[in-house]
Amino acid sequence: MRSQYCGDVNKSHVGQEVTLVGWVNRSRDLGGVVFLDLRDREGIIQVVYDPDLPEVFDVASSLRSEFCVQIKGVVSARPDSQINDKMRTGEIEILGKELTILNSSAPLPINMDKNQHNTEEQRLKYRYLDLRRPEMAERIIFRAKVTSVVRRFLDGNGFLDIETPILTKATPEGARDYLVPSRTYKGQFFALPQSPQLFKQLLMMSGFDRYYQIVKCFRDEDLRADRQPEFTQIDIETSFMSSAQVMDKTEEMMRSLFKELLDVDLGEFPKMTFAEAMRRFGSDKPDLRNPLELIDVADLLTDVDFKVFQGPATDPEGRVAVLCIPGGAKLSRKQLDQYAKYATIYGAKGLAWMKVNELDKGLEGIQSPVLKFLNEDVVKALLERTKAKSGDLILFGADKANIVAEAMGALRIKAGEDFDLLKGDWKPLWVVDFPMFEPTSDGGLHAMHHPFTAPSGMTPEQLEADPTAAISDAYDMVLNGCELGGGSVRIHNSEMQTAVFRILGIEEEEANEKFGFLLEALRYGTPPHAGLAFGLDRIVMLMTGASSIRDVMAFPKTTTAACPLTNAPGFANPEQLVELGISVIESEEEKEVSE
Amino acid sequence: MRSQYCGDVNKSHVGQEVTLVGWVNRSRDLGGVVFLDLRDREGIIQVVYDPDLPEVFDVASSLRSEFCVQIKGVVSARPDSQINDKMRTGEIEILGKELTILNSSAPLPINMDKNQHNTEEQRLKYRYLDLRRPEMAERIIFRAKVTSVVRRFLDGNGFLDIETPILTKATPEGARDYLVPSRTYKGQFFALPQSPQLFKQLLMMSGFDRYYQIVKCFRDEDLRADRQPEFTQIDIETSFMSSAQVMDKTEEMMRSLFKELLDVDLGEFPKMTFAEAMRRFGSDKPDLRNPLELIDVADLLTDVDFKVFQGPATDPEGRVAVLCIPGGAKLSRKQLDQYAKYATIYGAKGLAWMKVNELDKGLEGIQSPVLKFLNEDVVKALLERTKAKSGDLILFGADKANIVAEAMGALRIKAGEDFDLLKGDWKPLWVVDFPMFEPTSDGGLHAMHHPFTAPSGMTPEQLEADPTAAISDAYDMVLNGCELGGGSVRIHNSEMQTAVFRILGIEEEEANEKFGFLLEALRYGTPPHAGLAFGLDRIVMLMTGASSIRDVMAFPKTTTAACPLTNAPGFANPEQLVELGISVIESEEEKEVSE
Repeated sequence: MRSQYCGDVNKSHVGQEVTLVGWVNRSRDLGGVVFLDLRDREGIIQVVYDPDLPEVFDVASSLRSEFCVQIKGVVSARPDSQINDKMRTGEIEILGKELTILNSSAPLPINMDKNQHNTEEQRLKYRYLDLRRPEMAERIIFRAKVTSVVRRFLDGNGFLDIETPILTKATPEGARDYLVPSRTYKGQFFALPQSPQLFKQLLMMSGFDRYYQIVKCFRDEDLRADRQPEFTQIDIETSFMSSAQVMDKTEEMMRSLFKELLDVDLGEFPKMTFAEAMRRFGSDKPDLRNPLELIDVADLLTDVDFKVFQGPATDPEGRVAVLCIPGGAKLSRKQLDQYAKYATIYGAKGLAWMKVNELDKGLEGIQSPVLKFLNEDVVKALLERTKAKSGDLILFGADKANIVAEAMGALRIKAGEDFDLLKGDWKPLWVVDFPMFEPTSDGGLHAMHHPFTAPSGMTPEQLEADPTAAISDAYDMVLNGCELGGGSVRIHNSEMQTAVFRILGIEEEEANEKFGFLLEALRYGTPPHAGLAFGLDRIVMLMTGASSIRDVMAFPKTTTAACPLTNAPGFANPEQLVELGISVIESEEEKEVSE
Repeated sequence: MRSQYCGDVNKSHVGQEVTLVGWVNRSRDLGGVVFLDLRDREGIIQVVYDPDLPEVFDVASSLRSEFCVQIKGVVSARPDSQINDKMRTGEIEILGKELTILNSSAPLPINMDKNQHNTEEQRLKYRYLDLRRPEMAERIIFRAKVTSVVRRFLDGNGFLDIETPILTKATPEGARDYLVPSRTYKGQFFALPQSPQLFKQLLMMSGFDRYYQIVKCFRDEDLRADRQPEFTQIDIETSFMSSAQVMDKTEEMMRSLFKELLDVDLGEFPKMTFAEAMRRFGSDKPDLRNPLELIDVADLLTDVDFKVFQGPATDPEGRVAVLCIPGGAKLSRKQLDQYAKYATIYGAKGLAWMKVNELDKGLEGIQSPVLKFLNEDVVKALLERTKAKSGDLILFGADKANIVAEAMGALRIKAGEDFDLLKGDWKPLWVVDFPMFEPTSDGGLHAMHHPFTAPSGMTPEQLEADPTAAISDAYDMVLNGCELGGGSVRIHNSEMQTAVFRILGIEEEEANEKFGFLLEALRYGTPPHAGLAFGLDRIVMLMTGASSIRDVMAFPKTTTAACPLTNAPGFANPEQLVELGISVIESEEEKEVSE
């Protein structure tokens, strides 16, 4: 029905007759000439109808937005004065000869402009219209290109695309599972996978050696702006490869993705230990575009007569660190209060600050509520260590080390944005050498990655002797402060796996009930294996500059996990529930009504 | 950890040192030399250890099946007498120099031979071992190649891979949905999609123009050998393409798939109408390798004094057709009884037969229980029309037309196999021009394809005036008697869609409740669109010659929809059920126990 896409017509076609199909993006009758902007997925082109062909002109005059039409016409160069640099097809236009309305459109229920002010609910209810908007269509098309490039890379590197089940058993990621009642086994449930973690490990045990899958995963969590109940992972697992080799290969994949689709050369990714990332940036996913760093100053403050500083400075679990913000001294008292309030979200009890108004004036040039507690030597040492300049602001974090990292890490990000400090477009890195375990609030231990992660260079006995000292052979790929993906070398023998379950307080019975098949499988010549999973949605979001994960998915859910388009979820047929052996619990209010 | 895959070592590497990893497929100590068959996903290679290196030899002697090992050695040509033509690596062997056990294996719980006699349950419980068997691994690897070739073809033809939701609303395919309780909307449920049908149509309404997805679909059906609760579709939809264009493009895809992976040239696919397929083959998915055809003979039997023939021969809804089976006259009475019994499965009341023992002896040479009802002219006419030869068997089907088609179609397939009549390896075709509707047992109408299929060349008024006469613009791709996929041109305006719902007896309220969003969407410039879905599992099954769909899936379910590996489904945490607002209905027996 067409000779090419609208967006693909260019100057080389001048003089040719083309047939195009698409939607009326805009149609204006300007002084007896109809200018029709015709849109398809590849772009927009201008078609001009003049009254010389009265029948066609009449049809053209009758067009309204989003009519679906077919046009025939001749490509013509625009006069220089009318060339539109902002359009891919801006150098040409079509002199319309024929026009067929393939389908008309009722008046639209949402605004189709770039600067639409539709509510999120409206956009999702009329998603098929929202997706016609070029900025949305481009993101979905870009996403298809991402998966295509990734698949080509992995296919070309001997990775096998193998499907794992969606109807499966509760997985161990720790979030809430979606359940699916079984009809054959009444009262029992499948779980939708939070990831194919165990299946991909089983595939390594089967000898497939290099696996990948671009696969839906599910978490029944309370949603935040960047979370969706179903999301997509680029899931990878390999046998006989070290963590360094897995990192190299997947880094190569990411580099080729950015090169091919954005013409960006990401270069070699630096590696940074978790400890260094927390020390310098207060985050395990530091945005390296932000030049601010946390500077440790506890050693300068062990003797000051100010408990807020001196306490953490002398506490083995405490930390005192500062951020020096260039130009920050211009913040008002009110703005500083806002920074303090922001820090408390992350657990800080307050926020001490110091304005370096004029560096060469000594204490005179310094303004700070805590100045009275600090003698001149301490202030001088602080200024030297932070390399503060006149006009800078120093913010203090003093608390338990994890609170300082979190609060100062958050302030670092905020200040980086507020003061427009970010440098460079793309700053990837690997964060490595994570602790195996982190303490839980009830005094136990929690696996920092997941319970199948191998420790670096330890026997099961050594691990059990001092679990909190163990470093895992895990790695996260971070870009611009976002975790793109993470993975680890996996445990490949049952003694180590059993030891880890024991350290995590998973009783033998529970371990067997939940992971018995894995422990059994580990007994039959399991190869050393390692892998990683990337969040596809987040990668596409970053690469397209979208502000929400919903803008890179064709049919996302609302933040209450509903679909306004199809009205899912919905009530079930009562007979089907009986077949499934379940019933809906009447809520108290409903009971009252029915009484 | 390796220099190459085991299967990739060949004569060109003779003299080189290689490092390989894999599993002990077999290890034998023959007269003081250990022959180790080492296996990885690409093949098996022989490694030889002699006692010259006593330490290595001792390790080699200790190997048991399925140990995971790393070896180093030098590639050596085998003496001519020891060349093994059946192995890819049969011309060479490795002289082992080093040997590291990466992981040992406990004695195996299943038999790993090619001719294993493990039960299906055992194979699924130890799937990770079952998948190590080369014939299983090869099928899974082949499947990955199929998806890779298909994706490359579709990517190269401008199709966009777009993901549609798994948590969605009940879909209209008519099978039972899997339900997922919503936590946010207690008492409500998502359904897992039986296909992305409506979403792909919505994507056409969004202007994406060419869509594909290799996607999981779900049906909670009672399972048969070739059904699984979750299966995979190659799902395709296009805008602005006619049914002929969709068929051409997807036929090209299938041709390139067979060419690239099997080096088979499928040639151009013939097109056959549904009516012709039913008339000649008694099936809408005829296996064209089978030369047998149903031959209509009602006109010869309108006057015979035998109600069983004469009734259907004169009934406008009846049909009398025969199959002439070359060499079939040798069947014993007992075998003929089995054929008759087989026909009754498909609704036939019995099966009349006629043995053509000696054609040139007239009625003398004919043997048949119904011979007494037929005069010589009728018999002669039957023999002429069927072109029967001495030794042939004629089977009669006389009943309502649909029963004759089904029963004789089934006998055609059975006879084709029993008498080894199949010719050629691959016989594809398109079946087209299906009826829009078929009658239901309660006197209503059912959509033969699905309710979104467009009729060929009819207005909504014409369709409603005589729905049973309507032919749909639908098409099925059939290969060797299997439906590989099917699709149709879709309805793209709401008047036609509403008319079809009305014909199907879907009340306005129900239509709005279930498909209101589709009817609404059809109002805003919906483009003409058409599509198709292929069953990936079945394609892989055919191409690999697997006898069960389970043998082309990594982790299938049993015929009771369970997973013996993970023990899914399982009991849920009671608190989670409360959160979901559902409860398990106690069965009568359980109630008694708890009382």
